Amino acid sequence: MRSITVALGERSYPIYIGSGLLQNTGERCIEAGFPQRSPLLLVSDSEVAPLYLDKVAASLRGSGYTVVSHIIQAGEASKSLAVYEEVITTAIQGGLDRSSAVLALGGGVVGDLAGFVAASYMRGIGFMQIPTTILAHDSSVGGKVAVNHPLAKNMLGAFYQPSMVLYDLDTLATLPPRQVASGLAEVVKHGLILDKEFAYWCREHAGELLALDPEALGYALERGCAIKADVVCNDETEQGQRAILNLGHTIGHAIEAVGGYGVFLHGEAIAIGMAGAALLAAKLGRDRAIYEDTVSMLTALSLPVRLPAQYDEDELMEAMMHDKKFKEGRMTFIVPDSIGAVSIVGDVQASDVRGVIAQLKKEESPW
Amino acid sequence: MRSITVALGERSYPIYIGSGLLQNTGERCIEAGFPQRSPLLLVSDSEVAPLYLDKVAASLRGSGYTVVSHIIQAGEASKSLAVYEEVITTAIQGGLDRSSAVLALGGGVVGDLAGFVAASYMRGIGFMQIPTTILAHDSSVGGKVAVNHPLAKNMLGAFYQPSMVLYDLDTLATLPPRQVASGLAEVVKHGLILDKEFAYWCREHAGELLALDPEALGYALERGCAIKADVVCNDETEQGQRAILNLGHTIGHAIEAVGGYGVFLHGEAIAIGMAGAALLAAKLGRDRAIYEDTVSMLTALSLPVRLPAQYDEDELMEAMMHDKKFKEGRMTFIVPDSIGAVSIVGDVQASDVRGVIAQLKKEESPW
Repeated sequence: MRSITVALGERSYPIYIGSGLLQNTGERCIEAGFPQRSPLLLVSDSEVAPLYLDKVAASLRGSGYTVVSHIIQAGEASKSLAVYEEVITTAIQGGLDRSSAVLALGGGVVGDLAGFVAASYMRGIGFMQIPTTILAHDSSVGGKVAVNHPLAKNMLGAFYQPSMVLYDLDTLATLPPRQVASGLAEVVKHGLILDKEFAYWCREHAGELLALDPEALGYALERGCAIKADVVCNDETEQGQRAILNLGHTIGHAIEAVGGYGVFLHGEAIAIGMAGAALLAAKLGRDRAIYEDTVSMLTALSLPVRLPAQYDEDELMEAMMHDKKFKEGRMTFIVPDSIGAVSIVGDVQASDVRGVIAQLKKEESPW
Repeated sequence: MRSITVALGERSYPIYIGSGLLQNTGERCIEAGFPQRSPLLLVSDSEVAPLYLDKVAASLRGSGYTVVSHIIQAGEASKSLAVYEEVITTAIQGGLDRSSAVLALGGGVVGDLAGFVAASYMRGIGFMQIPTTILAHDSSVGGKVAVNHPLAKNMLGAFYQPSMVLYDLDTLATLPPRQVASGLAEVVKHGLILDKEFAYWCREHAGELLALDPEALGYALERGCAIKADVVCNDETEQGQRAILNLGHTIGHAIEAVGGYGVFLHGEAIAIGMAGAALLAAKLGRDRAIYEDTVSMLTALSLPVRLPAQYDEDELMEAMMHDKKFKEGRMTFIVPDSIGAVSIVGDVQASDVRGVIAQLKKEESPW
């Protein structure tokens, strides 16, 4: 078992990565300090629950816990205020009290939603993440929890740290190939922003990663979590440097908002966004090789780097204006300086962004 | 102008109490550090907005701010998730960004709702309280923000500190007498829990307080805020001692939940709850004089100390079971030990609470 500590003072917590961890969830809850007298709320979704909910609930009950569960419909559409209210109703009816905890068993949607429930129920109760996707390695580090508003993604939320993250690699074996690739987009992103060697390692080991080779995957998740943890620990509430983690997300979020959440998977949208950020880098005078290498890494991981023709440029620009990274009306982008290094660039010209989007829709090379 | 500092480290903030403060709201926002480039959201209600919103908005615009406003229907029913979502929509459409702030102009309902908006919009933006009721002196100190769930009051929220509280005593002149008395319930509560001298001072100066004498009221609000600030600063997220501020609230919240929010004003429900806590004290062996003095103070302030006959005991008991102060299934009450001193008593017998409720419905003396 691999173990990483996210070092946030009195809010520090461990991430465990390994095989066969689910069956000891109850013991981990005791380790996390959740009292057995208080009910636990297990939140999962319609795809994950049939596979793992019974095993987790049995472990919790075996350790003396009362378990209430709430299963949401799988998919980004469940990250809504309406579903949030339904989960809260289950929590109240299940008798959750101020010493209770919420366990998020699933991917990023379950984690974000359950996390906002934990952050706001009685003004904050315990929280444990049990990610079952590769993508969730990203959202399980850093404490960003949220639900969507019809007008913008992740608009309502909090910075709220879990007490523990339990990452059972066995749960990844049932992931559909598109979900695997989508998750690897955030893994390679961590290399692209801060670790050149790791980024090229991902390209080199793309086959093993896509085949879910346990050794390669365990290393990639550990490295991805560790890079993210380093960034987060230096800027917990995203006052500054943490924004580099948003590489590819400005365009990516707009793609998700305009196309409808769920048309592109999150990692796929982010992959297109990272290709866009690399194009923007070239426009701003950086080496064109950044774009070429970024595209080759993403393509090796079976990720898209082009935008379908039906995406409207005006709608994408409008969606970006609502994006919360546009602080005080200016357009700010995370732009690669080289593979493994990025800058936060304020005052990016809207016309340059528009040009990038137009280029992303073309089949031919940008130069 | 009186000034108190709520000392919470890097989240410390000032409370200003005085006359004519509204017209300088813009300058205060600059002092609070809100940048003029980012829009401000002014939240108020249908009773307060016609009186003061234009004055505040004019001051803000005069200081160079863009102002978006959202006016909710006055009353506890607006402290709902549905209204919360409406305010968020206004914020998004108004272009609020991560440097923006929410200003709560009104009583506790406006403050709690707007505070939860500020705490969760883009995971937290700036927040200023501009209370226009006496009751709001209580909710403006301590950072507890929340909305109600149909099954329980204040169920969804956060601990989120404002950057500043601006208390213009001139706004209190238009308060209806019942609102004045309701507000004074929380003022005298601060005396009852921690300051014997101040509690008796309130009884002695009840006439001046009810008549809104500026000198008496300014002193009472300053003292009330200062006592609360002392408690909060030692226990920001209510891990322990802060619970003493809930004197009267366990029964009071149940009265509000069963009767429907808004039948009794909050302070009236709390007054009945404080009479109940004093009865419970007598049941647990404390001096009966605590009850006699508590009742005389509340009565002097024109507050109710009896429960109407139609309130059903079973419904009240059930409502208390959902109350978040019942940690891990046991009943915990804040019980006075004397005037100016209280204890947190765990394992209170349900039958004793039931007896207190029955007695609160009777006209005759309990002994």
